[in-house]
This record gives sequence, C-alpha cells and structure tokens, in this order.
Amino acid sequence: MEPVRVTIWNEFIHERTDPKIASVYPHGIHHTIAQGIAEYGFQIRTATLEEQDHGLSEKVLNSTDVLIWWGHLAHDQVSEEVVTRIQRRVLQGMGLIVLHSGHRSKIFQRLMGTTCDLKWREDAKRELLWVVNPAHPITQGIGEYIDLKPEEMYGEFFDIPAPEELIFISWFEGGEVFRSGCTYTRGLGKIFYFRPGHEAYPTYYHKQVLRVIANSVRWVASAHGAAPTFGNSAPFVTF
Amino acid sequence: MEPVRVTIWNEFIHERTDPKIASVYPHGIHHTIAQGIAEYGFQIRTATLEEQDHGLSEKVLNSTDVLIWWGHLAHDQVSEEVVTRIQRRVLQGMGLIVLHSGHRSKIFQRLMGTTCDLKWREDAKRELLWVVNPAHPITQGIGEYIDLKPEEMYGEFFDIPAPEELIFISWFEGGEVFRSGCTYTRGLGKIFYFRPGHEAYPTYYHKQVLRVIANSVRWVASAHGAAPTFGNSAPFVTF
Amino acid sequence: MEPVRVTIWNEFIHERTDPKIASVYPHGIHHTIAQGIAEYGFQIRTATLEEQDHGLSEKVLNSTDVLIWWGHLAHDQVSEEVVTRIQRRVLQGMGLIVLHSGHRSKIFQRLMGTTCDLKWREDAKRELLWVVNPAHPITQGIGEYIDLKPEEMYGEFFDIPAPEELIFISWFEGGEVFRSGCTYTRGLGKIFYFRPGHEAYPTYYHKQVLRVIANSVRWVASAHGAAPTFGNSAPFVTF
Amino acid sequence: MEPVRVTIWNEFIHERTDPKIASVYPHGIHHTIAQGIAEYGFQIRTATLEEQDHGLSEKVLNSTDVLIWWGHLAHDQVSEEVVTRIQRRVLQGMGLIVLHSGHRSKIFQRLMGTTCDLKWREDAKRELLWVVNPAHPITQGIGEYIDLKPEEMYGEFFDIPAPEELIFISWFEGGEVFRSGCTYTRGLGKIFYFRPGHEAYPTYYHKQVLRVIANSVRWVASAHGAAPTFGNSAPFVTF
Repeated sequence: MEPVRVTIWNEFIHERTDPKIASVYPHGIHHTIAQGIAEYGFQIRTATLEEQDHGLSEKVLNSTDVLIWWGHLAHDQVSEEVVTRIQRRVLQGMGLIVLHSGHRSKIFQRLMGTTCDLKWREDAKRELLWVVNPAHPITQGIGEYIDLKPEEMYGEFFDIPAPEELIFISWFEGGEVFRSGCTYTRGLGKIFYFRPGHEAYPTYYHKQVLRVIANSVRWVASAHGAAPTFGNSAPFVTF
Repeated sequence: MEPVRVTIWNEFIHERTDPKIASVYPHGIHHTIAQGIAEYGFQIRTATLEEQDHGLSEKVLNSTDVLIWWGHLAHDQVSEEVVTRIQRRVLQGMGLIVLHSGHRSKIFQRLMGTTCDLKWREDAKRELLWVVNPAHPITQGIGEYIDLKPEEMYGEFFDIPAPEELIFISWFEGGEVFRSGCTYTRGLGKIFYFRPGHEAYPTYYHKQVLRVIANSVRWVASAHGAAPTFGNSAPFVTF
Repeated sequence: MEPVRVTIWNEFIHERTDPKIASVYPHGIHHTIAQGIAEYGFQIRTATLEEQDHGLSEKVLNSTDVLIWWGHLAHDQVSEEVVTRIQRRVLQGMGLIVLHSGHRSKIFQRLMGTTCDLKWREDAKRELLWVVNPAHPITQGIGEYIDLKPEEMYGEFFDIPAPEELIFISWFEGGEVFRSGCTYTRGLGKIFYFRPGHEAYPTYYHKQVLRVIANSVRWVASAHGAAPTFGNSAPFVTF
Repeated sequence: MEPVRVTIWNEFIHERTDPKIASVYPHGIHHTIAQGIAEYGFQIRTATLEEQDHGLSEKVLNSTDVLIWWGHLAHDQVSEEVVTRIQRRVLQGMGLIVLHSGHRSKIFQRLMGTTCDLKWREDAKRELLWVVNPAHPITQGIGEYIDLKPEEMYGEFFDIPAPEELIFISWFEGGEVFRSGCTYTRGLGKIFYFRPGHEAYPTYYHKQVLRVIANSVRWVASAHGAAPTFGNSAPFVTF
C-alpha cells in the first residue's frame, strides 16, 4: 500500500513573532506535528501562509491525500482562490483535518456553511477529552480520555452543523464542555475537526494528541468510491 | 387542538421506603412532575409499578400520547409483557420520555439495542447542562445552560446508539461529561432521554428541568405520518 | 399563536418568457404556491429577482419566519450581499425551504458547503416519492407515497452533506432514485429541501405537494432556543 | 496485519429442501459467499443452524472478528441464548453484516429495537442499487450503481432506526425504493445491513455484490478504541 501523502499547513506567524510561542514551537507547529507523526509511515510535506499560493498550488494539492490545517491570526489573508481550490479537492476526495483555531478558517466555514464561532478563554487550565464513540478508528489506542494541562478553553455553543460522528467531548475546569472531535463528509472528502492545541502550550508534543492526529489521517484518507457524474442523463431503464 | 395525553410512570419505591427520599418527594416523583408541568395544559395521569399491569394496560397505553418513565431499583420487576406492549405502542407513534436512571429500564434497552450502561457517582455536586442544539424546540426558553446543584454524576461512555439529535451535554464538577439530552425515532414513535434527576435531590422542582420535560412532551407528541403497510405487495408500476 | 410569516421567493423568469410555462403558472410559481397553501393560515408575501434587493431587504427578512426559494435560470444574478443576508438570518433562526432547481442556488450551496449537483432529465415521466421517515411531522397527512406524473428526473449522486433527516426518496420511471426530502440545521435555522416541481408541469397545484410544503413551513418555523453568545468568556465555575 | 477472521452463518434450509434453490446454491449460500470473497485474504469459517449452538459457541464467537448472517425461514429456531451471546460480542466490538432476509432475524431486531419489517414481492425483476455515499469505503470499486436482475423486491417503509450512514438506495422495476445499504454502531461493534440477495437468484455470484461484502467486512472489522468501564466511579478531578 502506498504511504498516505500528508501536507501540514500552518499559518506560521506566532512562532516567528512571539518569543513565548517560539520557545514552545521553535520551528513552527507544522514542524512539531510532522515530527510527532513521523513514526506512522506517512509521506509528509509542510506548507505555510507566506509561501507562493500559501504553498498550496494545484500541483501540491493534487498530490496530497490529507491536508492538516492550523491557523489563527491570519484567516483573512488566505486567498479566496486557494480556499476554492482546497474545497474542490476535498469534494474530489482529499481528506481534511482542521485543528484548534482553524475552526474560524475560511476553508472550514466554507465547508460547514456556518460561522463556526464559539466561546474561549486563555486560562491555561485542565482539559479532559472523553471518548464518546469508542467504536471509531480515530479512538484506537487512546483509552477512555485524554488529559491535557494547560489548555485554552473552547465552550459551547459551537456553531457547526451537527457532526456526522461525534468522537470526543471536552470537559474544562472552568465549567464548559465542547464537541472536540467531529467528523463530516463533503462530496468524496472526509473531514475531521480536532480541538486541541493552543499555540502557547506544548499540546502537539503530547503522545495521545499525536495518536489522534495519526489515526485521523488514516481515517480521512480511507478508500472511497467512484467520482459521480452529473448533468443531463439518458434514461437508464427503458420499457 | 386536543390536549396531549401524558402518562407519568414511576417505580415509586424510594419515596415509600426511604425517609430521606420521602422528604424530598412525599407523594412520589410522578406526582411532583405532574404538578410541575400542570401549567402546560396537558391531560395527565400517573401509573406505578405495583398497580395491576404496572398501571399500563392496553387501554391506558392506547389512550396515551406520551409516556414518561422514571425507574431505578426495580427494572427487573417490570414484566416482559408490559415492556413488549410499550414497545409496540412506541412503534405505533406514542412518544416516550425516559428520565435519569430509566436509562437501565427494560424498555429503553429494548428500544436502543445496547446496555445503556454508564459511570455514576452520588456526590451531590454541581451539574451544568449546556445546550448544544439551540435550534431544537426542546430548548425553547432554557437559555444557554441549566445549572443544577446538587446532582448525581453520570459519565461517559454512555452505551447508547449515537443519538439522532444531541441536545444537552452535561459538565460535572468531578471531571466527567455526559450526553444528557438525546432524541431517537423508532417506528412512528419519538423518544427523548433526559439525564436529571436523582431521587434524593429536588431536581424535579427546578423550573428549567420542568420546562425541558414540557417541551419534550410536545416534541415527542408532534404529528407523524401514516402507519406503513408491510408484507407481500402487488407491483406498484406495470409497464 | 401568531401566524407564521412566510416569504415565497421566485426567480420569475420562465413564466414571463416562455408561453408554455406561462400557461401552467400564469401569475408565477410563487403565486400558485401562495394560493395553494393559503388555507393553512400563514401570513404570506412574495418576492422576485427583479425587485430591489430581489425583494429581500433587511426589513423583509427580519419580518420573515420562513423563506421559500424557487430559482433555476438566474442563480448567478442573485447578489452576494443578499445571499449573505439570507444566510445570516437562517443562522439566527429563520426557516428556509428550498424547492426543486433551487438546489443550485447560491444560498443552498452556501449553507451546504458542496456543489449540490445531480443528474437530471426532462422526460415528463412518473415520479413516486416514498415516505422513509413516517415519524416526521412533514409527512403528516401524506400517506405512504406521492404519485406525480409528469415530472422531471433528478438522480443520484446528489452532492449534498448527508441529510440530518431523510424524509422522502423518489423513484423515477427511467431507473433513478433521489433523496427528495432532506432536513438540515444551520445555527438556529432549520432547512428543508424538497425536490418537486419542474416549471413546465403543474406540480405546485398537487394537493399532497402543497401539504408537504405547508407541513414543512410549520416544521422549519418551530420553536428554537436562545441565541448563543460567543467570544472571550469569564470562568463559569471557580473553585 | 492479521487476516480478518470471518464467520459466515447460514440457516441452510432452502438449499437442502428445495431443488430449485439447490440448483443455484448446491453447497449453500454460506459456501458460495465464502468462495466469492476468498480472494480478499480473510480467514473464513462457516456455521449453520443445525450445528450445536448453531455453530456459534462462545469459542467460535470469541475468535470471530466479523459475523455474516443469512436467514429466512427459521428465525424463530435461533435460540435466545445464542442471540444474547452474539449481541454481547457485537457490543464488545465484533462486526456484523446482515444480508437480505436477515432483516427479520432475532439478532438484527434485537440490535435495532424495531420490527425491521418491509414490503416484498418475488417478481424476479430488475434492481438497481445506487451509491448515495461515494465517500464511504464500502463503495470502493463499485462504480455509481449495481445492476441486478432478477432480484426480489423489498420496499419502504423499512422499519429500522434511521441508518447512521446510508450507502445504497435501491430502485425496483415495480415502482419501489429501498434503503439497501445501512450502517449502525452498537457499543464497540459496527453493523452493516445489505439488501441483496434472494435465495432463488444467483446474486451471491455477482462480482460487485461480493465486492460490497468484502469491503464491508473490512469496514466493520476496522479498529476501535478501548473497552469502556462502567459503574461507580471515584471523582476524576478534585479541587
């Protein structure tokens, strides 16, 4: 079996402008994730905002099976053309994994049809992610929960369409809950939203978080059927 | 419009055998709920375990639009025949609301196909029920959350089929989360599971809890289509 | 109870430019639907493409509980601004009913995140719409199926997100099937897509088709909960 | 990776009592399916009604990853004890594939909570199974539809809970439609219902039908998470 071709996209701003963030992710969140899932045998590339086409040319996307997305400060700087290109590729079957503050990215809003807004608080307290769908391949090897501290809080109502499958629900020390692992299908493409990790905390070094990301790469990259045909059709059956 | 005909079923054991529980619900949980939703204009009856047929004869069920169920100690004492009768009526369109420890009732297990098991702890701490589907009629008038203290903890994994609609998620002080408001359809019947309230706490006097119960009575009693026909059929179309 | 305020939007081009269509809908599809559901007690207005703001000013939308949408030839002529305005109102709780060729409207694509494309054929043959969710209020009074002839064919794959509730499946004489009645939730808004009727056929005079439209008006207009709040939040619970 | 351990269960009555059926499946439907999916690399066993424990002892089930079920005449002869044993194994993570008339088997009814009844007609006409979820691994290699003739008709309403994922919809020459490929999750177990094939027709020699069965074996056998724990729990978080 061919290795899954993963492109990890990161805005890559915090890590170059804020020394506190740089101390956590000196080479960028994309780099840390790439190293963290290296052991799973994927073929990994990275791409960032400032590259031409944000590093997401037709050529790159056409050879990408799974796109991982992290963004926060600069959602508005992502060009509509690239967003449209990504959307088209998802509908054709490319998997998409949206992480944390990517919930407000243009591509996630475009695919959801909603604001994807939520409550938040940077209080560096505890998050517990409980598995609520232990039958799902994304939960393999995770146990009953993931225990993270410190993490930022994200709270409901999370303005998304009801997930097709709800995998994780987060508990936050300050009293909130959140639908933290959500799957969707759009066209031939599978999508996974995963809530952790804030740029200021070492979440993407956490073994279970990395395991969820690796599991979800496999899941969004899993086989699909034939590309459908559209338009004016001859009668299928004649009597 | 005819008033919705509601039958509130209660095991009615705790309230007669445990003075502590009797002090909270002196006439039984069924009685408190009946009074609590009286203002909503339903036509309300009650039924209990020790009555003949547990108070749920064919005649009673056939004139019931919505059955509310509270049980805990004596799930095994409910006769298979009555469970089968209730199941048949749900499939024919009777609404069913299962409260709290009713999660382990025979009728809920029968309709779900799973154990409906969960984690629990009687620690009398705080529960926050967050609305995660504010578009749903069951959430009308509730606000963004319900704040209960004291309540018993119920924790995931809750062994149910994924709800068709997830309405509430609970946060518990001890670290757990729970899918606390879940809808299902079986045949023509609509089902709502609602997690609160423990027999030792005055949960069924709480205005918002009662509002959810009243809203869900209306929702599970809402209109449905024609009873389907089954079996050997003549060709519908001939060429 | 206040009557539901319905705005029926129609592109209104075919009926003015094509004598064949004009003979079926002399005053426009919007007018026929308005008359056809008049008996259900809604407060009905209409709006068309060529009016200022396509007849959908802020003022009109803010006093609309349910928007019904029929379009075909001129999806591209609907302004982005009006589409954004409608989307915002849906997320705030306005119901939306999209009919037939409205599947390719900007507003439906915007809310779905997909192309909403499909197969089609104008062969004026028979369509049978089977009820596959008889528990749903939208099916009240419909029986087990709706029998239409002539109708245009729409065939799978229909490029939409999996419906939250699938209500009707169509059978077409030429061999195709179609998910013909689909519900969605976006924000506080409920959405119903209903497949019939082609502009050249008298579908919107059909009693059962009108009944489905009326039922769905009530359903998408049904109560919802409180508008959620978003953004930076104070801790809810402090220990 | 270990091969998936598949047990194909067949009632095995028609093939021994009816020469017409015997001429189609001389060694039984189970044997034909076993041969038909041999090329996919599974480790396959068969079991039949008349064996002790119907061939489904604890030992057999505990070493089964996926159980395939075909039954028709003798649903009532399957012992409650064995049904309970299968249900327990599904909840623990064993995959289950229910074929055709298995819709009325005790195990399927037990897991669904409904009658699983439907319309039917043995008219040996054409069935077209349209893919309505081309993103799903079960549709890999199938194309846009499967074309079967002759097949028995199954028609809606099919009294099942709404499938978690709807994969195929059938068109029948006589005018009916049917939800022919449906997935469910119960506990850790994944379930797939697949409508074809009638015992009198050579459906289980059809390459695409066998491909769907093989794809679904892989899908219901896919990884899952940890077995949940239930019962009285210590506080997870203390303040």
